[in-house]
Amino acid sequence: MDGPDFDELTYLLSRLPGVGRRSARRIILHMLGNKDNIMRPLSDALERAADTIRNCPECHTLDTVAPCRICQNAGRDRKTLCVVENVADQWALERTAAYKGLYHVLGGTLSALDGVTPDQLHIPHLLQRVNDLEINEVIIALNATVEGQTTAHYIADSIKNPAVKLTRLARGVPMGSALDYLDDNTLVTAMNARSDV
Amino acid sequence: MDGPDFDELTYLLSRLPGVGRRSARRIILHMLGNKDNIMRPLSDALERAADTIRNCPECHTLDTVAPCRICQNAGRDRKTLCVVENVADQWALERTAAYKGLYHVLGGTLSALDGVTPDQLHIPHLLQRVNDLEINEVIIALNATVEGQTTAHYIADSIKNPAVKLTRLARGVPMGSALDYLDDNTLVTAMNARSDV
Repeated sequence: MDGPDFDELTYLLSRLPGVGRRSARRIILHMLGNKDNIMRPLSDALERAADTIRNCPECHTLDTVAPCRICQNAGRDRKTLCVVENVADQWALERTAAYKGLYHVLGGTLSALDGVTPDQLHIPHLLQRVNDLEINEVIIALNATVEGQTTAHYIADSIKNPAVKLTRLARGVPMGSALDYLDDNTLVTAMNARSDV
Repeated sequence: MDGPDFDELTYLLSRLPGVGRRSARRIILHMLGNKDNIMRPLSDALERAADTIRNCPECHTLDTVAPCRICQNAGRDRKTLCVVENVADQWALERTAAYKGLYHVLGGTLSALDGVTPDQLHIPHLLQRVNDLEINEVIIALNATVEGQTTAHYIADSIKNPAVKLTRLARGVPMGSALDYLDDNTLVTAMNARSDV
């Protein structure tokens, strides 16, 4: 009954992360009730974003200008480089406004299981940028997972210049969390890295 | 950092049911990595659906043809009419393939609280169709909620023709459910309407 137009739209929507066939149908019905306010503007915005948003040739983030606005911004600290796995992680850091340096988006993490080698990430380019920009500090902001930490170790080993300070994000108890729900590793780390009040 | 193109797309996606700002960003990043497989086809499919999908002038469902394929289908039982609240409910029934008659989509339920009157729904049109099509049976398939049942009563009272049989969906224990998780009302209804094995 749905017809080919419904089917294609349902299929495409259900391929988006977090959207299944049931929620795809809900979304379609919602949009069909708001064609001019949601459906057509969304179609236009998707088309425009597909046309205009590109990877930055410098830091590999996504932006409508190349190099991206952060790489172009003269107000940013151009001697500090923060290494992140993907654009989502960069956005998360950028939302906090706690960091004013440059970024480098790897595009993934090393993984022997999935056959991801350093050349498939932007690691060679990272090493080149660290040299070319004469970076003072590289902040490795990778996920606290096995793959993230393997990648962090590889990067730390590859940056051979002793003038470059290597740091990583602090480990500990996240804000607002209840201790008895935290995993043991985090608690051990937080206990060992305790600080004076 | 996200820029106006990101912001508009994030805003539009986050207005969809079940999608918040965080999942909107996830969806955008996923799509930007699959521009030609997802992003552009989705934009096209949205545009096409907005252009082609219309409300059926007969039963008020959504379809690319008017009257809709069900209303046009000579193989359907044209003397039975199933009243549903919205298109999603019709789709749910249609997926089961258990019903072969016509539909009538009300477009909502009566609600004193929200000021929804019979004229704002397709109830006058329903009464007219019941007469014009010489319907034998009206199946009221409205939600088992207060609003749904109020609307069901109103419709039952409005169809004054004694030749029209009025039925509603059976109430009872849903398939696969555990009795001790069911609400008391359902259990009482199921007990009272028990059937021979």
